[in-house]
Amino acid sequence: MNVILDLSVVPIGVGVSVSRYVAACHRVLTDAGLKPYLHPYGTTVEGDWDAVFAAVRRCHEVVHEMGAPRISTTIKLGTRTDRAQTMEDKVHSVERKLKEG
Amino acid sequence: MNVILDLSVVPIGVGVSVSRYVAACHRVLTDAGLKPYLHPYGTTVEGDWDAVFAAVRRCHEVVHEMGAPRISTTIKLGTRTDRAQTMEDKVHSVERKLKEG
Amino acid sequence: MNVILDLSVVPIGVGVSVSRYVAACHRVLTDAGLKPYLHPYGTTVEGDWDAVFAAVRRCHEVVHEMGAPRISTTIKLGTRTDRAQTMEDKVHSVERKLKEG
Amino acid sequence: MNVILDLSVVPIGVGVSVSRYVAACHRVLTDAGLKPYLHPYGTTVEGDWDAVFAAVRRCHEVVHEMGAPRISTTIKLGTRTDRAQTMEDKVHSVERKLKEG
Repeated sequence: MNVILDLSVVPIGVGVSVSRYVAACHRVLTDAGLKPYLHPYGTTVEGDWDAVFAAVRRCHEVVHEMGAPRISTTIKLGTRTDRAQTMEDKVHSVERKLKEG
Repeated sequence: MNVILDLSVVPIGVGVSVSRYVAACHRVLTDAGLKPYLHPYGTTVEGDWDAVFAAVRRCHEVVHEMGAPRISTTIKLGTRTDRAQTMEDKVHSVERKLKEG
Repeated sequence: MNVILDLSVVPIGVGVSVSRYVAACHRVLTDAGLKPYLHPYGTTVEGDWDAVFAAVRRCHEVVHEMGAPRISTTIKLGTRTDRAQTMEDKVHSVERKLKEG
Repeated sequence: MNVILDLSVVPIGVGVSVSRYVAACHRVLTDAGLKPYLHPYGTTVEGDWDAVFAAVRRCHEVVHEMGAPRISTTIKLGTRTDRAQTMEDKVHSVERKLKEG
């Protein structure tokens, strides 16, 4: 089962700056062979369900290892059985509609 | 690694009524040995990371098998290494603060 | 326009314990005449769109005033035009399906 | 109060294709003078709290007017009082950390 997943990891108890932790998580996703798409409010990845969620788990482990005692994460995810769809397809589909006016 | 996870599964392409699918997912969580807490905007569970996420995956499979061609899910989840905390603890902690005024 | 809204406010930069802020936000919602439903992963309210969102804004103001320099919030919300539905209706609808087996 | 907000609007009861509604919402945000940033799992905007939330409300109205009887929306939002930060700052901050290795 393929999944498109949007990830926001918020470390709690390590001050106001969180970019160091988001970057570490980005590296975890890259090391897992995923192609993370960084945007202003999270990171989006796509791939096999188990591979993606193993990487999400690894993110939590790494952020805890970096010293964050608590993590609050928000995930949005989508699966579909009617057809294959990539992250790029999703953006293009909306952009096409925007051009049609 | 223990996790508290809040799950909202929204089937797309099967009309406006989604309670049938939420109930099926609830049964999946119960069958997995978790104790799902149903609230007005989702279902909260707690337990070992891998057990919880295996159940979330099973939810997606079951909802697709029921006929939903597309599923959009929102998950909020927390892990902490500083101390153990249950779903009940979280609610009690806020209720205590409310009583203190 | 009526809305059912689930709110999770996470103050950042004030340590690991967040229940004090969640309780303050709960009071804001109550003072706004809403009937907040506290659950293990957030607080759910329902009401007129503008009244609900004015209270959400007030929550952010109060949590900042309490000393949190940064807040990360996750909101899930639903509106519908086909029929009226309360928070209670949503839970009952799923519970009914669970009993039907 | 300035806010950075990430918006995912999911119309329910209008079939599996949702890009038409996401595009309409994008136009609402643009017409409100915001500069929506479209990514694979939502749209991010920044601006004054009231202006941003008025546009979010208008999105719901427009998507209902287009025929969606029900809408399920997920919002992630952040406010901070310690310093000004734009959507671009957030991405650059993570990218800088990634380059530092």
